[in-house]
Amino acid sequence: MINLNQDTITQAVVKSFEGTPDARLKEIMTSLVQHLHAFAREVKLTEEEWFKGIDFITRCGHITDDRRQEFILLSDVLGLSMLTVAMNNEKPAACTEATVFGPFHVDGAPEYDLGTDISNGATGTPCTVRGTVRGIDGKSVANAMLDVWQSDENGLYDVQKPEVSGAQARGIVHTDAEGRYSFDSILAVPYPIPHDGPVGQMLEATGRHPWRPAHLHFLIKADGYETLITHIFRNNSDYIDSDAVFAVRSSLVCDWVEQPDGRYLVEYDFVLNPKA
Amino acid sequence: MINLNQDTITQAVVKSFEGTPDARLKEIMTSLVQHLHAFAREVKLTEEEWFKGIDFITRCGHITDDRRQEFILLSDVLGLSMLTVAMNNEKPAACTEATVFGPFHVDGAPEYDLGTDISNGATGTPCTVRGTVRGIDGKSVANAMLDVWQSDENGLYDVQKPEVSGAQARGIVHTDAEGRYSFDSILAVPYPIPHDGPVGQMLEATGRHPWRPAHLHFLIKADGYETLITHIFRNNSDYIDSDAVFAVRSSLVCDWVEQPDGRYLVEYDFVLNPKA
Repeated sequence: MINLNQDTITQAVVKSFEGTPDARLKEIMTSLVQHLHAFAREVKLTEEEWFKGIDFITRCGHITDDRRQEFILLSDVLGLSMLTVAMNNEKPAACTEATVFGPFHVDGAPEYDLGTDISNGATGTPCTVRGTVRGIDGKSVANAMLDVWQSDENGLYDVQKPEVSGAQARGIVHTDAEGRYSFDSILAVPYPIPHDGPVGQMLEATGRHPWRPAHLHFLIKADGYETLITHIFRNNSDYIDSDAVFAVRSSLVCDWVEQPDGRYLVEYDFVLNPKA
Repeated sequence: MINLNQDTITQAVVKSFEGTPDARLKEIMTSLVQHLHAFAREVKLTEEEWFKGIDFITRCGHITDDRRQEFILLSDVLGLSMLTVAMNNEKPAACTEATVFGPFHVDGAPEYDLGTDISNGATGTPCTVRGTVRGIDGKSVANAMLDVWQSDENGLYDVQKPEVSGAQARGIVHTDAEGRYSFDSILAVPYPIPHDGPVGQMLEATGRHPWRPAHLHFLIKADGYETLITHIFRNNSDYIDSDAVFAVRSSLVCDWVEQPDGRYLVEYDFVLNPKA
């Protein structure tokens, strides 16, 4: 392991992982090193570009805190998140499709009774969200936990607003005995992902826009079923065909209907896959 | 760009970079996305593993500060640094070979006259370092800048010691009219790279040691010549055959000779490549 050159170093690094006790970790490290080196070799990465890469990832690290996750954002805009979701959520066609988790979920959101307004100060056009949770066999799923989160009318999540310390437009509800859920919130709108950091600079330098179509996030857990992480999207929203994070699935696009009183109503029924 | 699956997403992401004004940036992003996706696809990365990866890289970001660079360390132990060095430093055989930069260089090191002791409080066995800087044509290079840095006898660089605010065993000297350089410092010893962070945890989980053989860093700049970033290594040092960062080249290994008075002496002549 001396005098390694560009032709011999990859095998030497792979060999250094030979003694990894965990077979899966060994497989991951081996593949990671091979593809990382293949990338550097393919573009013949210069030392200056290497330094720029170190600087970029360092800045991603330094802007990341409890309220902001630049690395998830980076994974999202590079399509790695959606690829991972797609590979791990092959389900029968009748099941609700999964999509990306995104950087704005917060553990420990407040619990609400069905029908409650969860906006809690987030501004926007009032909107009622309701529907059912069923298994693929059609049976209703009682007591399913729906953890939901969304931005306000300015496109900002609670965690993006320094002046907000509690949860806004974010909460947990449980389905009733018939598998029904409902809550009031605000109308989802398109918004740009946070683009005042290194990921935003990368998007700008590559001529990409940072916008996502209007959507509402769901994380759904129920005994006996696979956990579902998904969104529902607003039909005809701007950017529905050019989501910055590649996450739109037509089965998740639905109508958000304006009511005579100006409120909106969206109804969506989720279908869960039983655990194997 | 809707309903992307694991077979179609890579092309969609590549296409999103189509409008990149800078051709080189477009080439890099296209290759990066393809290899990143190929890695995830080859190992069929799970969502749990994706979260672990996000957590790992986040922790690398948070431990990195003005005095510690975990991302360079990560690049070093994955062999990416040495690969980049190898690809970009193909020079005539007579030139001094380059090796990795490492995470411990500091801009603005103090300048010393030739022959000065630069240890400045760093503990260790006294050691004189001297030699010449020449071009590949044999002509001596006057006024070449040698920026040198090394650890103390405990294997710690000044920036790793919270109680040290100034430069220790780190400094800049310039060659004289005959291309000669000399300074006093301390004897280099093997040391483990910082392994109390995420990179150290990765090494431990994969059964790798964190040690580097004894070495002294040089960054050499001179008008009309290519900049040289390299180390010299102590012959017969422990770990000379298993450097944690894959950086040893036999042409950089030399004898550090104990003198009758207990001091050490190392002589090394550098040969620079003229700028094209």
